[in-house]
Amino acid sequence: MKIVVVVGGVGGARFLLGVKAALGMPAEGSGESPHEVTALVNTGDDVWMHGLRICPDLDTCMYTLGGGIDKERGWGHAGETWVVKEELAAYGAEPTWFGLGDKDIATHLIRSRMLRAGYPLSAVTEALCDRWQPGVRLLPMSDDRVETHVVIDDPEQDGQQKAIHFQEWWVRYRAEPKAHSIVAVGNDEAKPAPGVLEAISGADAVLFAPSNPVVSVGTVLGVPGVRDALRKTSAGVVGVSPIIGGKALRGMADACLTAIGVETSAEAVGRHYGSRKDGGVLDGWLIAEGETADVPGVTVRDVPLLMSDVDATAAMARAALDLAGAPVD
Amino acid sequence: MKIVVVVGGVGGARFLLGVKAALGMPAEGSGESPHEVTALVNTGDDVWMHGLRICPDLDTCMYTLGGGIDKERGWGHAGETWVVKEELAAYGAEPTWFGLGDKDIATHLIRSRMLRAGYPLSAVTEALCDRWQPGVRLLPMSDDRVETHVVIDDPEQDGQQKAIHFQEWWVRYRAEPKAHSIVAVGNDEAKPAPGVLEAISGADAVLFAPSNPVVSVGTVLGVPGVRDALRKTSAGVVGVSPIIGGKALRGMADACLTAIGVETSAEAVGRHYGSRKDGGVLDGWLIAEGETADVPGVTVRDVPLLMSDVDATAAMARAALDLAGAPVD
Repeated sequence: MKIVVVVGGVGGARFLLGVKAALGMPAEGSGESPHEVTALVNTGDDVWMHGLRICPDLDTCMYTLGGGIDKERGWGHAGETWVVKEELAAYGAEPTWFGLGDKDIATHLIRSRMLRAGYPLSAVTEALCDRWQPGVRLLPMSDDRVETHVVIDDPEQDGQQKAIHFQEWWVRYRAEPKAHSIVAVGNDEAKPAPGVLEAISGADAVLFAPSNPVVSVGTVLGVPGVRDALRKTSAGVVGVSPIIGGKALRGMADACLTAIGVETSAEAVGRHYGSRKDGGVLDGWLIAEGETADVPGVTVRDVPLLMSDVDATAAMARAALDLAGAPVD
Repeated sequence: MKIVVVVGGVGGARFLLGVKAALGMPAEGSGESPHEVTALVNTGDDVWMHGLRICPDLDTCMYTLGGGIDKERGWGHAGETWVVKEELAAYGAEPTWFGLGDKDIATHLIRSRMLRAGYPLSAVTEALCDRWQPGVRLLPMSDDRVETHVVIDDPEQDGQQKAIHFQEWWVRYRAEPKAHSIVAVGNDEAKPAPGVLEAISGADAVLFAPSNPVVSVGTVLGVPGVRDALRKTSAGVVGVSPIIGGKALRGMADACLTAIGVETSAEAVGRHYGSRKDGGVLDGWLIAEGETADVPGVTVRDVPLLMSDVDATAAMARAALDLAGAPVD
């Protein structure tokens, strides 16, 4: 089977571990398999810092699937050190709030050098994956620069607003300043990376990971051509809800939903994605046990949705594939 | 007094510690002083690696005078770690032979970012020195790109020669392959950095550190305008010989001398620099006790020249200033 999964960072990477396990592939690393998994990865969190191009979601997926992630923290390298970051701070070089690990910097150095030499991000990602062997084809949603910005009250000028990079809002301010709006700069003009549309049209199933519906899945869907491909594919398209117990699984996603005027509930997020029959993108909506959702034109099913370990996540992935009409034997 | 010192890396940095001490300045760090020391630093060893601009001689001077150097090794940071380097190697990213420390990388990141933003190397160096407070004005010899290459036998093609970067020859191959010639690419077209010629013309004394006469002092002298300024300045110009016991103080410098057809002796190096009266650049030539040198038109004096500690180096600097006609009270 050919499975396409739309993902963001930590949650998306964990869901991919489950998809691989559901298909009988090793969760970490690569191996022979009759199945093919392609991840369409959000790049709206990407940012230049200290002259380095940082792609948080691509790297989180790559390290997680390649067995190099810090499992406790969910992001960054196992055994990471922070010498360069401390030294940059000793120089007074801004920004100092970003968790730029030493091992991570090697990845960013290689990526930045290749980008400056003219390689597209998709080719860079492939080169980096040559080492990590994630066992999943990791495709950036686009090779073009898309950066999500958040409009907040300017803390220094009363009554004024200012836009800051999503990373600054999320990591530095922990999504605390109210987001008046969220804008993925460049999203409208971005071209899908090579292989993105082909993966969707050739898929047996398309799944949305329980990633942030606004700044992760939403940004991938915002690349021109992606929604259209999702509407036309013969594959079933199933979203996995990030709402558990009436809350966004990862605390701060509700702030993003609020910013775009969507309630933090399984029903509201399902309706936000909408039915393929009706201008939306879903055939099925997999929600957490205990939630309810009525989404016109979309088949809703509820199962346990906590990604507590790979087995639990694999069960989620199996349920999603089942709902997509592509059950695993 | 205004003292100008032409320097390379490790030896030059140590000599600068002695010059400062001779003038009653703290050897490490900055402090109030009626004296002004300007170092004209070789940049021919500079190189781009992994997308980072590395300036070995500038950094060695900056760290040494700022109290951050690894004193055992003579280069790089005290307490340095090597996580990024190991991780780059795990990716198979070349080159792997260069000692790229984590703390060092912070310096290179800031420099590379500023250079890409359009700041000249002299401005970048000033910004970096803001943290290190070397107590000496460190001027790159030029803001233009000059890179020393060494022509060796091609190990892969019999009978062919190839040019490699000086760093590769020096660090990777430990100067073992015979150097057929040494070429500082870009030297002829380089403009002196702002302040270089003014420092020479306004100096009370100009000293050459006992640095490599070919690839360190020689490259600084190779910047158009520098020799001319040295001939015209009212300051006395004194070289300190790097030859002790008939050998180059730092083992591999003799290979550079051989490559340009100069014998490894105090006399031959002194004659290579030559007298200001005669198209050369020296008034005085300070050689090591036990050496002899007859250099027409140049006053030769011998003193102990081993930079075993700051006191011994300060004594050398005092002797050099004395010979330059600018004695320290």
